[in-house]
Amino acid sequence: MSDQQQFFFTAPHITQNAGPDTTRTILGHDPTLMMLKMDFEKGAIGEIHHHLHTQATYVLSGIFEFTIGDKKRVVRQGDACFMPADIPHGCVCLEAGTLLDVFTPEREDFL
Amino acid sequence: MSDQQQFFFTAPHITQNAGPDTTRTILGHDPTLMMLKMDFEKGAIGEIHHHLHTQATYVLSGIFEFTIGDKKRVVRQGDACFMPADIPHGCVCLEAGTLLDVFTPEREDFL
Repeated sequence: MSDQQQFFFTAPHITQNAGPDTTRTILGHDPTLMMLKMDFEKGAIGEIHHHLHTQATYVLSGIFEFTIGDKKRVVRQGDACFMPADIPHGCVCLEAGTLLDVFTPEREDFL
Repeated sequence: MSDQQQFFFTAPHITQNAGPDTTRTILGHDPTLMMLKMDFEKGAIGEIHHHLHTQATYVLSGIFEFTIGDKKRVVRQGDACFMPADIPHGCVCLEAGTLLDVFTPEREDFL
């Protein structure tokens, strides 16, 4: 763990095309935790899905309609969402922006 | 888990005085994951400490000098830091700002 790049991420670490009009940038991770940014174009959709990982999302910019379980809410910069493990969730991007997503454990499927 | 407040956090959930010139606002948590904001006044210090929780930090605003293990780096908006479990870390706020901190498991000591 002596590599500075394991501690500080000032540039994109891993950038991935995450689907139509979405880009994923992994900022840091180890087996227990992953932090990444998701850039969305207006109209991009994060389809309803679920996973064993607990997820928290912070809205860095843009406007999104989130669905979590049977709840729906429009969220904007400074809002946060919390998704317990296995709960169905998804979003629609109403105005282009960026979400900060964190997961525990890490999303091995993103590596 | 049917309470909407468990999923969406558009207002401070729990705000705490976290020390001289620092304020903590818990945004969301369950036993596996906690997301919070830390507001720092210029000159505020997060003393070097360590904990069993893995931590990732995203700089929402301001300028901070972070120490993680034997590494030191100045970080600004859009930068991220990753702190493996038990690694000593701390920061000094060079320009007032806000950090988004996430922990796994949750910080029971903050509840």
